[in-house]
Amino acid sequence: MRCDVIAVGTELLLGQIVNTNASEIGQMLAENGIDTYKQVTVGDNRERIVAEISRALEAADALIVTGGLGPTHDDVTRDAVAEVMGVELKRDDAVVERIKQIFRDRNREMSDTNLRQAEVPQGATVIAQRIGTAPGLICPVDNKVVYLIPGVPDEMREMMSRAVVPDLLERSGNRSPIVSRMIRTFGISESKLAELLGDHITDLDNSDDATIAFLANVTRGVTIRVTAKDPLAIDKEEKRIRDVADEWIYGVDGDSLESVVAELVVARNVSLGVAESLTGGSLAARLVNVPGASDWFRGGIVSYASDVKFDLLEVPEGPVVSEKAAIAMAEGACRVLKSDIGLSVTGVAGPAEQEGQPVGTVFVGVSIDGKSSATEMHLAGTRERIRESAVSSALNALRKHLLKI
Amino acid sequence: MRCDVIAVGTELLLGQIVNTNASEIGQMLAENGIDTYKQVTVGDNRERIVAEISRALEAADALIVTGGLGPTHDDVTRDAVAEVMGVELKRDDAVVERIKQIFRDRNREMSDTNLRQAEVPQGATVIAQRIGTAPGLICPVDNKVVYLIPGVPDEMREMMSRAVVPDLLERSGNRSPIVSRMIRTFGISESKLAELLGDHITDLDNSDDATIAFLANVTRGVTIRVTAKDPLAIDKEEKRIRDVADEWIYGVDGDSLESVVAELVVARNVSLGVAESLTGGSLAARLVNVPGASDWFRGGIVSYASDVKFDLLEVPEGPVVSEKAAIAMAEGACRVLKSDIGLSVTGVAGPAEQEGQPVGTVFVGVSIDGKSSATEMHLAGTRERIRESAVSSALNALRKHLLKI
Repeated sequence: MRCDVIAVGTELLLGQIVNTNASEIGQMLAENGIDTYKQVTVGDNRERIVAEISRALEAADALIVTGGLGPTHDDVTRDAVAEVMGVELKRDDAVVERIKQIFRDRNREMSDTNLRQAEVPQGATVIAQRIGTAPGLICPVDNKVVYLIPGVPDEMREMMSRAVVPDLLERSGNRSPIVSRMIRTFGISESKLAELLGDHITDLDNSDDATIAFLANVTRGVTIRVTAKDPLAIDKEEKRIRDVADEWIYGVDGDSLESVVAELVVARNVSLGVAESLTGGSLAARLVNVPGASDWFRGGIVSYASDVKFDLLEVPEGPVVSEKAAIAMAEGACRVLKSDIGLSVTGVAGPAEQEGQPVGTVFVGVSIDGKSSATEMHLAGTRERIRESAVSSALNALRKHLLKI
Repeated sequence: MRCDVIAVGTELLLGQIVNTNASEIGQMLAENGIDTYKQVTVGDNRERIVAEISRALEAADALIVTGGLGPTHDDVTRDAVAEVMGVELKRDDAVVERIKQIFRDRNREMSDTNLRQAEVPQGATVIAQRIGTAPGLICPVDNKVVYLIPGVPDEMREMMSRAVVPDLLERSGNRSPIVSRMIRTFGISESKLAELLGDHITDLDNSDDATIAFLANVTRGVTIRVTAKDPLAIDKEEKRIRDVADEWIYGVDGDSLESVVAELVVARNVSLGVAESLTGGSLAARLVNVPGASDWFRGGIVSYASDVKFDLLEVPEGPVVSEKAAIAMAEGACRVLKSDIGLSVTGVAGPAEQEGQPVGTVFVGVSIDGKSSATEMHLAGTRERIRESAVSSALNALRKHLLKI
């Protein structure tokens, strides 16, 4: 099953927004074992959208088209798909009713323009809208299929997991309730994982039981996708992987390092505060992205200037890229933010070395119940990548400490 | 002049990294008045790369291809372009020498694999590499041109501005030294700007003097691009725009809200500290992205829990989404971080209202020389968008205050 992706929107071509949908959809397809060979971005131009959809359907079995489903005259994706299907658009009463209801709920006046969003190509199936006003559409084209979904990330994500992925799996003949499991690791490379699993990978390649694949994200770790028809086979594979790689596995499926840290913190009924230097606020920002963070996240100190470390966090005078400083920062976070647990990160993002420490040197400190320790690590890449990797590494270090209490 | 874009990389299709290059290149082309109608992403597969390049050249005059220029066997972009050109690859001695020099500078051993990066299609012009080991390539295909540049963002950016954009401008017949100016605004909509400029836009459309275009970024403001053959005409246009819209203009060309704030802070020889709540560290993170931030940025307090606001920042007990709280937070930042200036942001990112304040309500506080004030604003969109807009709004509020001292 090959499913390609088309994003519609002149604002994407002009670089006014970043196409994060492309990577999210790519990831969802990869995680579900659906191949994707091409992604295209086109502007809000009916003729060019028609041409790209037709061209993509020559090679792909299915096509996801995002964007251009708004209510205004330059939202022409519906019209373009109807043209490819060779059908007319027809107003759908159920969609109209939901749009009206959304406006009533928000106490807002609906203009007739909004009813453009209720226009459905004849023969298409509606994916009822739940977040925004635009419905999704499943449009058959000969023996292939085009999914139209809104470009707004929240709406895209919700419709992809509720309707598009399940429909793709069904069409690909994969009807088993559990089709795959994502095993999330951090701190180990793809090649090292492959080495640990050794001959087993070859054995699997020659069997029908299960397949495994590696998906690497440069700052967030390697994910192992296990796919099988029988849920029991997936459990068996997960066990086998955990037997050799458990220390690097932080979660499965929708887990992220920050969501796992949040779960551990909540289960232990403790609060968390952070102190960060080279990451400049990104560690705190990643933690507040977890829904409900206000229940356990006290806050953070961005001690960018060295004497903020000395004065506010009581870091002893001396090198600030050091084990000692990381420990004092973690303890300082607990004291200043009145948190049970303190997490800190200090290091050299570059471009130049600092205190004789090379670029990429990072110390992560953890303080729990008055017991503190720090870990030294060496990260690679650009300034931005070192910062992001430092945030992930700090979250992973805290996770490991939390598992011990 | 139409220039389309192809990104090569299986990791992009699988969503392992976000294709930020696409939006950056789109923006650079738009800012230089070069049309782009299509962006494509393909995997590391020679046959498909060849097919996409050939197809793109049917419609576009020029093509930028990023990625797949690494040293390993799955980096096949060079081979694919040579195939499209109908020529052989040939080792370029000057490129070899620079690669060897880079390895010597880093005290690292070079393996022969790296010499793959010195393979150049016959007839192509080399863009000498300065950051990484891969050179860029300008490849003529009949009367059209394909630019090959590395996918690493730093390297892409540097080669785009040094070589690709100037070459595109020359080919498009636009050889004047200053071709366009970007006038950066914040806090005003595209339609309001168009209204302020009124008939003048129509006048320009009917003249040869200059053209103006609006480029909107949803959380970072609207940019006005002025293009003219004569630099004096650009100055004249900028003056005319400033006459009606000066209060919203924060900079030109490469300026960002944070870089302008940094310049103003440096010029006044003061230091800055921030206190933030709903933005959770993103305000500080955006400030540390400015090169040299350690000279003037003291740090930040992420006061996520209300009692961190009360205890550490001495916010008076009471509603924390309020003018009073924003002022106390800004003053608290100065006190705790020992900074001359304090900037704060507190508000409701959603999903639910807070203290009876609707989602999107944000207060920004500024404290300078003991004088403090706060501004109330109402932002729209998702949780993420409200956070990003709140950061931009806070930076803009500080900018306005700095202009007065």
